[in-house]
Amino acid sequence: MADHADTTLRVRYAETDQMGIAYHSNYFVWFEIGRVELCRQLGLEYKKMEVEDDSFLVVAKAFCRYKRPARFDDLLTVRTRVANWQRRTIRFAYEVFNQASGELIAAGETLHVICDRLGRAKSLPLKYRSYFSAVPCTEPKSPGARATVHTEMRK
Amino acid sequence: MADHADTTLRVRYAETDQMGIAYHSNYFVWFEIGRVELCRQLGLEYKKMEVEDDSFLVVAKAFCRYKRPARFDDLLTVRTRVANWQRRTIRFAYEVFNQASGELIAAGETLHVICDRLGRAKSLPLKYRSYFSAVPCTEPKSPGARATVHTEMRK
Amino acid sequence: MADHADTTLRVRYAETDQMGIAYHSNYFVWFEIGRVELCRQLGLEYKKMEVEDDSFLVVAKAFCRYKRPARFDDLLTVRTRVANWQRRTIRFAYEVFNQASGELIAAGETLHVICDRLGRAKSLPLKYRSYFSAVPCTEPKSPGARATVHTEMRK
Amino acid sequence: MADHADTTLRVRYAETDQMGIAYHSNYFVWFEIGRVELCRQLGLEYKKMEVEDDSFLVVAKAFCRYKRPARFDDLLTVRTRVANWQRRTIRFAYEVFNQASGELIAAGETLHVICDRLGRAKSLPLKYRSYFSAVPCTEPKSPGARATVHTEMRK
Repeated sequence: MADHADTTLRVRYAETDQMGIAYHSNYFVWFEIGRVELCRQLGLEYKKMEVEDDSFLVVAKAFCRYKRPARFDDLLTVRTRVANWQRRTIRFAYEVFNQASGELIAAGETLHVICDRLGRAKSLPLKYRSYFSAVPCTEPKSPGARATVHTEMRK
Repeated sequence: MADHADTTLRVRYAETDQMGIAYHSNYFVWFEIGRVELCRQLGLEYKKMEVEDDSFLVVAKAFCRYKRPARFDDLLTVRTRVANWQRRTIRFAYEVFNQASGELIAAGETLHVICDRLGRAKSLPLKYRSYFSAVPCTEPKSPGARATVHTEMRK
Repeated sequence: MADHADTTLRVRYAETDQMGIAYHSNYFVWFEIGRVELCRQLGLEYKKMEVEDDSFLVVAKAFCRYKRPARFDDLLTVRTRVANWQRRTIRFAYEVFNQASGELIAAGETLHVICDRLGRAKSLPLKYRSYFSAVPCTEPKSPGARATVHTEMRK
Repeated sequence: MADHADTTLRVRYAETDQMGIAYHSNYFVWFEIGRVELCRQLGLEYKKMEVEDDSFLVVAKAFCRYKRPARFDDLLTVRTRVANWQRRTIRFAYEVFNQASGELIAAGETLHVICDRLGRAKSLPLKYRSYFSAVPCTEPKSPGARATVHTEMRK
């Protein structure tokens, strides 16, 4: 099984701003599209997770580093993987590529807390753990060795 | 002169999602509203900066930590300050408060590179530097002493 | 009691597109802001109507005619009124003005069906009817005499 | 040549609201996606039309009738055609279908005025007229015979 999912999307006119490039908050929407598709490829339909198991992936942190602009009508690939997960949290990592140039245009992460419909933190239901355990762990063990993709605000 | 600007906004129905809370990417739009108002209070109309001085604040990094949900019709305060700035970059810091409860519901940062209309990095025009030098520097000198607001993805 | 509510909003950077003007779908979000404020001025908190009375104003039709562009940072007035209402439907009418020029820049309408949380049409709860009966009817009786604001797609 | 273009899209989580359905303004964004794809199938890249021919399709009117809700993760088909066109205007018509049920969930129209980058109305460049003349006219000649899809606000 692949350790990531690639999803294609095309930049919408509505997503551009008067700079003539995609407005930065849209990347977090694109990340969500990648996340839903990664889950689907792992065998997990996110919408069922909410309805059938009262488990919501509530966003606790979100980060994006923008390297090159995306423009209207550009075809992009969102590459998503599970960076790591614990009993109550899942961290996803994303890379966005311009399909025409092959260039990495942005990279980011989101941290999610599993909550019930009332917003209370809960453990990831057992049935879902197998999906994520199937994901090869791609995070280095030592914090100092973290991949440069996870650029932090501080740097 | 105050070291920050407070802006009030009300959560729009369009900003909610099926969890019944404001969708996370909207916080970056709210940050932008706070940023534009801070600039205005410093005497700088951002729209003129683009048109008259060919200087755009292009987002290079964006981060948000979500602590509590925002809901439809909630009145929020976005508190914005210049975290620090250099010749070619400005870093803004944001705190979002629920006006009814007084609680801090989110905090984040954005890093901007000054670019011309073609997207090439440039120095902040001299006329604007006075605005930002007037902002008291609120960043501690030592990296280890950084405020907890600047929570990073890694933690 | 006034027959309309005026709400001020400022065009967000996120709402612009690469034409340098506010993207057209945002006007429907602005209409919603005007609608919520009109309800509030009538004494009706829309969020309570959903939660306490299981009554949702589901959009059945939406129309907007765009006369002049709105630009980033423009201050706009959304003028909202109840065009007419029946047991199961409410029609709102909107005019958007540029505050600096005073010009009417857009006008539109939305038709809403009162539904329960499962999406089934229902009658407007009695307690709410008084709010709307208090609104002077501003619609001409004869269809041929309709105000030009209600421009139709066909014309 | 087909008289319409079919485009597939999947409802994003960001597009839902607290009613648990896609927020109504998003349909106009979906219409735009259909419009861009129809143009592409006719041989016309809209982004080039803006850059190379200084011709923008500015929205003058927009209408949508909502028949059934769209929900998160639903696969939709946007069917787009040129309803009619004149020297300075183009009218597009849209139907949105739920792919799982086959049901028509919404239908609408947008009227566009061809403008230059300064927003002044202009004639559609000759080179583009051939694209639209190739589209079979699907509008009935007599106004009274208009398809029921073009439901107006008045009805």
